[in-house]
Amino acid sequence: MSKKVSIIGNGNWGTAMGRLLANNTVESTIFDKDVRMWGCREEYEGRFLNDIINSDRINPRYLPGVHLPENLKAVDDICSLADSDVLVFALPHQYMGAIEPLKGLVKSSCIGVSLTKGFVSAEDGDIDLVSRLIHRILDINVSVVMGANIASQVAQDMISEGTLGYTDEDAADIVYKLFNSYAYRVTKIKDIYGVEISGTLKNIVSMAYGFAEGLGYCTNTKVAIFRNGFAEMRKFFKFFYPMATTESLFQSSGVGDLLVSCMSGRNFGCARLMAEKRMNLREAEESMCFTKLQGPGTALIVYNYLRRQKRVDEFPLMSTVYRICYENEAYDAILECISSESVEK
Amino acid sequence: MSKKVSIIGNGNWGTAMGRLLANNTVESTIFDKDVRMWGCREEYEGRFLNDIINSDRINPRYLPGVHLPENLKAVDDICSLADSDVLVFALPHQYMGAIEPLKGLVKSSCIGVSLTKGFVSAEDGDIDLVSRLIHRILDINVSVVMGANIASQVAQDMISEGTLGYTDEDAADIVYKLFNSYAYRVTKIKDIYGVEISGTLKNIVSMAYGFAEGLGYCTNTKVAIFRNGFAEMRKFFKFFYPMATTESLFQSSGVGDLLVSCMSGRNFGCARLMAEKRMNLREAEESMCFTKLQGPGTALIVYNYLRRQKRVDEFPLMSTVYRICYENEAYDAILECISSESVEK
Repeated sequence: MSKKVSIIGNGNWGTAMGRLLANNTVESTIFDKDVRMWGCREEYEGRFLNDIINSDRINPRYLPGVHLPENLKAVDDICSLADSDVLVFALPHQYMGAIEPLKGLVKSSCIGVSLTKGFVSAEDGDIDLVSRLIHRILDINVSVVMGANIASQVAQDMISEGTLGYTDEDAADIVYKLFNSYAYRVTKIKDIYGVEISGTLKNIVSMAYGFAEGLGYCTNTKVAIFRNGFAEMRKFFKFFYPMATTESLFQSSGVGDLLVSCMSGRNFGCARLMAEKRMNLREAEESMCFTKLQGPGTALIVYNYLRRQKRVDEFPLMSTVYRICYENEAYDAILECISSESVEK
Repeated sequence: MSKKVSIIGNGNWGTAMGRLLANNTVESTIFDKDVRMWGCREEYEGRFLNDIINSDRINPRYLPGVHLPENLKAVDDICSLADSDVLVFALPHQYMGAIEPLKGLVKSSCIGVSLTKGFVSAEDGDIDLVSRLIHRILDINVSVVMGANIASQVAQDMISEGTLGYTDEDAADIVYKLFNSYAYRVTKIKDIYGVEISGTLKNIVSMAYGFAEGLGYCTNTKVAIFRNGFAEMRKFFKFFYPMATTESLFQSSGVGDLLVSCMSGRNFGCARLMAEKRMNLREAEESMCFTKLQGPGTALIVYNYLRRQKRVDEFPLMSTVYRICYENEAYDAILECISSESVEK
């Protein structure tokens, strides 16, 4: 029987990926043609957004200008997705609570795929990952798909690539078939932690890069900050997630995503504005109307975690981003993150 | 007795680094204050360039606008450097033959430091490295210093970093003291091959990035090319230089240098021009008056090497750059280098 695919979240990225999946399933022998996309019941210019998606084949609020395929169906009731064989999660991590109503309803054979970057604070003060949170709530195996992807470019079928991090080979084969296409090229790697963590940490590094840009630093200096941040991402793996591989940093979810974020991300833009206009974090966020900025929150969670682990000094770049955001540290403190040191071979 | 330091090469990079070294030695207890800089006897506007350097404290041909310290002394006779304790090589790799007159004259205790990126063709068709060539000619231990450095920025003391790759710990300690400063931050790594090879291969990858830029590709696509090129650099290590470490790719000489080259390098600029104006390599080189472009030559050496090793297909990006440069392959063939694949953990 063909597998039912659903995506949870109809924001910018959810809709872009919903479109991709619907295009991939339309002539598939493995998957049900129809892809359901859940979004909460919200109005847009006097009509319900889900009704607009289903009738006008467009998501004017989150992905304007992109035609959506007929077999992508917007739904209001998240519980109607309980019969899914593949559940794709594309909610911002702050809103993952929205999946609670599915608890106990989803088939144990259902394959989860998280597209969500971001750490969650665990109750004990440790870091929790979104993939583990989903697993805990729904008791299903979860893979992740992340990469160097600007949503509007993926939605226009420009050549892009993504990384599929997995633990279960059979599930990964199915997820690969669902996501891979000529325009969206997927690489599989058996390392869910590495993919998920680097997709999250890069938001801290891209803020450091943004401070350097806002201060008008030269190319050598900016690249040194990029480079030190990338090396800190690797160090983070080594200390806290030794099961994550360096290999994943060579994937689209690693160095690729970091580079895109430093070239054009929102966290980069916020940090640049802060340094350029001498704004604090709150002023910059307000002036850019950001609602889901992830860098500062991630820097805070990571800093608290490093403090508990007594390793703050070993991550000068990540700690400095936290201090600039929350403790009025001077922007140019970021220069001290460029170290001279010996590296073990 | 304080160590005599000399630098061979008075081009853009040689002069910038000569200035750095002279600033570092001026109050040193380890090094002789004077740093000698050799350049062949050439005229500039009716005077000898070396005379201009020594009297006017400026190198108007290769590093205009930068004041040079009093203790940087230009010399004409390369053999006068035979008593050096540290010999720094800053010649383009095509001109390394200039050191032949020193053969048999240099002290066996002399410490060599190569700043020169570029492969040399060995007689058997294999790849030879500049550090090994220097060792073969002068029979001295050689370290390398390379990184994400735009010369004019280093010459203005903007914060930059470099990587010191070495084999001999004691020699490396001395080289570190000679090069490291607040503005130029050196990281040591016991991996001479990794540092030298990545500093060379990045010129191929930055051409691929330039083709993508010239064709007007979107950010996702350009970053995917960067990412695939970086991964091929790693694969090259694994196959051909297993003694090189992945760690060195995380240094300034690795991901840092690659990024600078894709942002602003001459090889990048040449490739962008080729794709944008539909020029062939010769036309683009002529129109940019490049005399020492390294990317195409490196692509040729690497392609011939890969062919001999029967591994062309495993390095699609590097091979495609060769074909575009020398076999009239279409520029957009570069898209096929973005693979979808499985990666071993």
